[in-house]
Amino acid sequence: VTDTTLLAFDWGTTSARVYRLGHDGSVLDRRSAPLGVLHVRDGDFAAALRTLAGDWIDIDAPRIASGMIGSRQGWLEAPYVPCPAALDTLAGGIVRTPGGELMIVPGVTCRDAAGIPDVMRGEESELAGAVEAADGRVLAVLPGTHSKWARIEGGRLVDFATYMTGEIYGALIGHTILGRLASPPQASDAPPGTGFVRGLERGMGAGGLMHDLFGARTLALAGELAPTDVGDWLSGLLIGREIRSARTAAQRAGHDASQVLLIGADALVARYAQAFAHFDIVARRAAADAAARGLWRIARRAGIVRR
Amino acid sequence: VTDTTLLAFDWGTTSARVYRLGHDGSVLDRRSAPLGVLHVRDGDFAAALRTLAGDWIDIDAPRIASGMIGSRQGWLEAPYVPCPAALDTLAGGIVRTPGGELMIVPGVTCRDAAGIPDVMRGEESELAGAVEAADGRVLAVLPGTHSKWARIEGGRLVDFATYMTGEIYGALIGHTILGRLASPPQASDAPPGTGFVRGLERGMGAGGLMHDLFGARTLALAGELAPTDVGDWLSGLLIGREIRSARTAAQRAGHDASQVLLIGADALVARYAQAFAHFDIVARRAAADAAARGLWRIARRAGIVRR
Repeated sequence: VTDTTLLAFDWGTTSARVYRLGHDGSVLDRRSAPLGVLHVRDGDFAAALRTLAGDWIDIDAPRIASGMIGSRQGWLEAPYVPCPAALDTLAGGIVRTPGGELMIVPGVTCRDAAGIPDVMRGEESELAGAVEAADGRVLAVLPGTHSKWARIEGGRLVDFATYMTGEIYGALIGHTILGRLASPPQASDAPPGTGFVRGLERGMGAGGLMHDLFGARTLALAGELAPTDVGDWLSGLLIGREIRSARTAAQRAGHDASQVLLIGADALVARYAQAFAHFDIVARRAAADAAARGLWRIARRAGIVRR
Repeated sequence: VTDTTLLAFDWGTTSARVYRLGHDGSVLDRRSAPLGVLHVRDGDFAAALRTLAGDWIDIDAPRIASGMIGSRQGWLEAPYVPCPAALDTLAGGIVRTPGGELMIVPGVTCRDAAGIPDVMRGEESELAGAVEAADGRVLAVLPGTHSKWARIEGGRLVDFATYMTGEIYGALIGHTILGRLASPPQASDAPPGTGFVRGLERGMGAGGLMHDLFGARTLALAGELAPTDVGDWLSGLLIGREIRSARTAAQRAGHDASQVLLIGADALVARYAQAFAHFDIVARRAAADAAARGLWRIARRAGIVRR
């Protein structure tokens, strides 16, 4: 382990990952644990760090983290830095825990035209890993409980918007009448059924979302949507509507929205890839381990890692 | 009680009301009980009817009902009749329970341009009571868990759309991160605070709903929205967005949307009245007991009541 230049922590709300990085920033090894911020007992983050790192705790290399570990509920708050945010901006906002155990990258905030704030924490590091300055203008999408759409120009995060798509799906299927005619949820990694594409089409229409959602009930009531398709239809509706809204917003900002960069690797990201293909939007997939790559770039910029 | 011409039941999911009507259809008296369809034990609707009616059960007058009592989960299914629906259409769809205890008015269904069905059950009778043929073209709004917007021409229900506003509010505040920074819910009949108007303004904007909702969290995180205002802000956002969507849909259908008829009498309806006033939409309030009045009109049209 003498080839380690950095230990990079992607430390979120429910889970945490640590990467051991080599001299060129490549991922030599990785570990993970269900030790997200919500699961750390008694606020003893130092103990959680030791559990997560295991014997890597003895490696003589700097440690850097991103994600909810830097929130008010985390180890130490790393105040949000504003957009536009370059690598320098992120590097300049790094904070260090009192005992020197960990450096933490700040989240980013921006405001829309109406002055309403938006925030991200963790995604800024994934973006730093997935997009290089030479990529020019990029519209990046990070699907999730709270999907993020980010506009990047020359490696600077210009602005971004959060869509609560994943969390709204869960609340609707679990806690409204829409879930009552749905069959028990399929495994989250099951490929979407035919209901998904029908929902996507509805989602790309111009109706009001709070009305369109009701279709998940009425189609099922009318026998025109199978109980096993209700969840997929709803998922398609929400993802389709997210894409329509975000594309419109990007176009208003003068950004080409016919191509996107899709960041992530789970079943949800595969759904988004299918949705983009359905609507003839070219979705390039980012390389894996974007967070680790981004943390390495930020650490280098901050002078934490030297080549 | 010899002056009774009709016992009219407004029998919903959670509660039930019965009206004793006189010769001109006026409400002589009313009773209610928490005996909605979901609370009737062992499907014994005849017993629930006796409990609800009390000593009125011995009155020699016809009995007619509307609402979820006519759904698949109710006493007897009264199949939906299609739009356009006139009084004759509703009268022609009445079903009678096997023991002759009760006549039940059908719900109404319609389809939008994309062929997606919508349904109502109970609101058709309120509309029949609130709107007369001589009223011409009317855009009627019935706020609720599932708000209904109905277009009526010459007393015929042309089409309508459901907005899940109330239920979505409950799911978001109770089961997503948006409720976490909100102070405990105020009494449902409390007048809305300043957050409501700020939410309304956001709701009438052109953003994507799944993005705009996140403002309830970010504004609170940034200290720009008091915890006691989070619920009102969210309520304003959703009601504002409902009004924007429904107004756009009505205008597309060639309907004047500068005036609406507002049906209902609870605190939620007062919120809608405030919202309409804020956006310079003239909202006329329907007279009370619209369901009772509508059931009397339908019963007369069906020849169940004779003058």
